[in-house]
Amino acid sequence: MSQSFELIAAQLVSIADGFHRRGWLLGTSGNLSAVVERESLHLAMTPSGVDKGALLADQILLIDEQKRVISNHQAKPSDEAPLHIRIVKQRSAGAVFHTHSVWSTMLSDLHARDGGLAVEGYEMLKGLAGVRTHEHREWLPILENSQNLEQLAGKVGEALNEHVNAHGFLLRRHGLYTWGKDLAEAKRQVEIIEFLLETIGRTRMLSGKG
Amino acid sequence: MSQSFELIAAQLVSIADGFHRRGWLLGTSGNLSAVVERESLHLAMTPSGVDKGALLADQILLIDEQKRVISNHQAKPSDEAPLHIRIVKQRSAGAVFHTHSVWSTMLSDLHARDGGLAVEGYEMLKGLAGVRTHEHREWLPILENSQNLEQLAGKVGEALNEHVNAHGFLLRRHGLYTWGKDLAEAKRQVEIIEFLLETIGRTRMLSGKG
Amino acid sequence: MSQSFELIAAQLVSIADGFHRRGWLLGTSGNLSAVVERESLHLAMTPSGVDKGALLADQILLIDEQKRVISNHQAKPSDEAPLHIRIVKQRSAGAVFHTHSVWSTMLSDLHARDGGLAVEGYEMLKGLAGVRTHEHREWLPILENSQNLEQLAGKVGEALNEHVNAHGFLLRRHGLYTWGKDLAEAKRQVEIIEFLLETIGRTRMLSGKG
Amino acid sequence: MSQSFELIAAQLVSIADGFHRRGWLLGTSGNLSAVVERESLHLAMTPSGVDKGALLADQILLIDEQKRVISNHQAKPSDEAPLHIRIVKQRSAGAVFHTHSVWSTMLSDLHARDGGLAVEGYEMLKGLAGVRTHEHREWLPILENSQNLEQLAGKVGEALNEHVNAHGFLLRRHGLYTWGKDLAEAKRQVEIIEFLLETIGRTRMLSGKG
Repeated sequence: MSQSFELIAAQLVSIADGFHRRGWLLGTSGNLSAVVERESLHLAMTPSGVDKGALLADQILLIDEQKRVISNHQAKPSDEAPLHIRIVKQRSAGAVFHTHSVWSTMLSDLHARDGGLAVEGYEMLKGLAGVRTHEHREWLPILENSQNLEQLAGKVGEALNEHVNAHGFLLRRHGLYTWGKDLAEAKRQVEIIEFLLETIGRTRMLSGKG
Repeated sequence: MSQSFELIAAQLVSIADGFHRRGWLLGTSGNLSAVVERESLHLAMTPSGVDKGALLADQILLIDEQKRVISNHQAKPSDEAPLHIRIVKQRSAGAVFHTHSVWSTMLSDLHARDGGLAVEGYEMLKGLAGVRTHEHREWLPILENSQNLEQLAGKVGEALNEHVNAHGFLLRRHGLYTWGKDLAEAKRQVEIIEFLLETIGRTRMLSGKG
Repeated sequence: MSQSFELIAAQLVSIADGFHRRGWLLGTSGNLSAVVERESLHLAMTPSGVDKGALLADQILLIDEQKRVISNHQAKPSDEAPLHIRIVKQRSAGAVFHTHSVWSTMLSDLHARDGGLAVEGYEMLKGLAGVRTHEHREWLPILENSQNLEQLAGKVGEALNEHVNAHGFLLRRHGLYTWGKDLAEAKRQVEIIEFLLETIGRTRMLSGKG
Repeated sequence: MSQSFELIAAQLVSIADGFHRRGWLLGTSGNLSAVVERESLHLAMTPSGVDKGALLADQILLIDEQKRVISNHQAKPSDEAPLHIRIVKQRSAGAVFHTHSVWSTMLSDLHARDGGLAVEGYEMLKGLAGVRTHEHREWLPILENSQNLEQLAGKVGEALNEHVNAHGFLLRRHGLYTWGKDLAEAKRQVEIIEFLLETIGRTRMLSGKG
């Protein structure tokens, strides 16, 4: 397991650095995780409060299903670990990525009253797992933000049940969660959803619809 | 031929990486190709479903005119290979680049009902092959997006016949295709057209014309 | 002390380079400082008039409380050193960062008549020192710009007294000042406040509120 | 002289690469020059039609006052060399930089009927050579674009005479020219003017003034 953990940790660092450069993980925001062992759940995860542009592989934590740190690291797991664990279990995900972009922050607020945001008719949607055509309609649920993370994890669980086809969701004025069967799929979906949110936001500006 | 293929593959990787950084090939979108041999057509091409920011030269495919993989790679050719092949043959192009930017996605939708987008009076136009003055008027045809790629290749062929001077075209809510006699010319034209699309999009916002 | 100074100088260079790449320190604008010794105040600081994208560690100055250069460098301290010194003393800061972004320039002007700008309800606020919830309301005071830096330092001192919880302030049509107990905290707060200013600016555009 | 030329060539390459990354020299647009010898004028200059993101030092040309290539390079001097030569002579500049950004392209068009664009009251102006306060008013003349470069050089000469304090000018729908006593000053002024143009453009959008 240790070699696999090291490999996953190095990949998380590289992905975090790329996302930080794009402005999606500024100011220690966001967190990335990946499953190391599924039976007795072991999750590699970025620690709380670190600069994602200066992360080192040996800062990546290994936590269990109760978000206990089981590696020899002293760092604190992120408060949002319960959301990652919930998604991993409910979606059988291999990786869960949470980013904070300007566009996801804005659009999660603007569409909060609708409970979600529909994205439809873009070729870019074809990159989402299992989607075969641009004629797909993706519903991105939007949940109210909260500092009670255990409660929020429960609401995330409900939303995942209600929207079984959703590839991600937004937390209001907070950011995006998406996941994949592995690191590459989760990374791809972050890029796709961030691209689509920027496109939708700019289209509103371009067409003058406030 | 093999050395030439290796050199072309290395250049495709480098160009793909640069475009990915600019946000023009996010989420495995887009594809780049270049002619290795023209007589019996051999095309070097980025494979389907790979992260363009983490591409390796040995992932580049060599395909023939029937989009059969003729190198020893197991990877799958992109669904859009028929469009590349059509353009190579009809324009005698040495390289064909397809990018997905936010601006091309938006403007291809906004101008779809006109069947194209005129770009006129910009110095930047002088960088397009054969253009000698900013007083040039470039017509970028816009085609409806489709998942029937063979049929779409036929429509691309018709558009190329109809607009013999076009340096590129847009697929609606999908992205840009442009090409050149070689890799450098195709890269230059991607940069030029993307710059002009951003300029046109922002000008609409600046002048409040929704 | 010298080793600590060298380490701090190297970190200032690395942070300056990153901020320059993001467009927050263009054209020799902005300045960064960090405390090397607090008793008899010694401050490491970027010199006046240098390109922050091409800074070298041995260009970093060491100055005292009277902004005298006490290292062996010939370079001139920034005119804004009195502001850094004032903040270090009044907030017991370990690092003071001043950036010039497009968004801080614009919003500091747009909200100048209100004397400041309120930022409220964003998850990103949780990254500010001591803030535990997105339900936080941050007031960013805005001060009129001036070339009389000693006088301006006095006004900064008053603003810091009046707004004891503020994590930063804006100079009108000039930029952002923030600080932290150390380099990492100051860097984090720059990223957070710049993110929030961009979010607020774009939200105004998106919602059509001029 | 040869060592000085090599050093200047290496710096031009590094500056070109940085500007290309920021999107200010896309598609082989723009050109950079620097004086190697002033008596009998020798100018190091980027050649015509090259990718500024993949430039090599040995591609930099050495030209004389009649834009004859006097180094052993085969490359073609840029059509815009007469503008560079004119500016060098009339302003005693040590370096002349010409960039094509989206913002300079848009604003040079929007303000063309006024013959120029006023920039006033920004701290960033203090970085322009000889400017000591943000209360400075910079007038950026705007000239109609033309493919008759000798004639255009004449008009540039007149504009430089008329606006003796101008630190740069715009060509309509084309881009920015600025210069400095050396490479560092010219680079600084590009960054400053580009920053200010972006600020002015976005402010128009933010305030809803079309």
